[in-house]
Amino acid sequence: MSVPEDEVTSIRHDGEGGGLKAPTDHRGLRVMGFEECLERLRATPVGRLALVHAGEPLVFPVNHAVDGVDIIFRTLWGSKLRAAEDAGTVAFEVDGYDTLTETGWSVIVKGTAEMVYEDKDTDRYDRLRLRSWADTAEAGFWVRIRPIEVTGREVLAPNAAPPTV
Amino acid sequence: MSVPEDEVTSIRHDGEGGGLKAPTDHRGLRVMGFEECLERLRATPVGRLALVHAGEPLVFPVNHAVDGVDIIFRTLWGSKLRAAEDAGTVAFEVDGYDTLTETGWSVIVKGTAEMVYEDKDTDRYDRLRLRSWADTAEAGFWVRIRPIEVTGREVLAPNAAPPTV
Repeated sequence: MSVPEDEVTSIRHDGEGGGLKAPTDHRGLRVMGFEECLERLRATPVGRLALVHAGEPLVFPVNHAVDGVDIIFRTLWGSKLRAAEDAGTVAFEVDGYDTLTETGWSVIVKGTAEMVYEDKDTDRYDRLRLRSWADTAEAGFWVRIRPIEVTGREVLAPNAAPPTV
Repeated sequence: MSVPEDEVTSIRHDGEGGGLKAPTDHRGLRVMGFEECLERLRATPVGRLALVHAGEPLVFPVNHAVDGVDIIFRTLWGSKLRAAEDAGTVAFEVDGYDTLTETGWSVIVKGTAEMVYEDKDTDRYDRLRLRSWADTAEAGFWVRIRPIEVTGREVLAPNAAPPTV
């Protein structure tokens, strides 16, 4: 569960004696470390779940929380998610952007989705007081995404100094 | 290209002599009309493209524009999108949310993605001065999503009066 090595195609050095600068990928995007990705996932209340259903991509927003490294949320959409459980992996995305500077960032989690029924887990989740904004009924499945891979990228403003690491 | 009829499970009436209120789906979410969906797509600069690649869901943000009813954007990610072209449908999502009121909305476009090479189209797109924030190089493919289905939903605040139609 890490930034895939092959996506980090350059580590910029600041010339002789200079410090190590933020790693960038082949598109010049700043590559976030795992802890920063997790922090952004925690700080962003709404993300988008993408899954394959009947061979086609589905994407919809959910308000989520982070439990350890798992993404959790509640939903009444049990049938589609059961299909996702069967299908294997899902993707989850959070982002932020600034239209003025034309900058933005995103964190993408690839993982497996599973319904959570065990009291020891759902009791802990219940204490987070997280409920689905979209589901009016209180009931609903707890769903957990167990990350396989977490990646984060940031578009830096043109000519902006890269953040120090 | 419309809100699928089967998702509109109730039309709320305001009692005898009352006016027609906003249609809601089975979860109590307000169903947006097509023109409102298009307006939200136009007004929101960043959306998320979801596609199936090697059997798994991919999702990533793009800054887009709307040309007629098509979603257009530029990207250097030609290889993945060529796979999407082959694969058939993609999904595109924009949303907005308010953590204070725990409300939000989303518009989801299901459609086909295709590279655009024809000058008559790319010249028009170029005049929109849309460039990918994430791709530092000016070059990049123009991609067009031709909508098959456009749906929009809004989470209303609990006990909020539904908007008049």
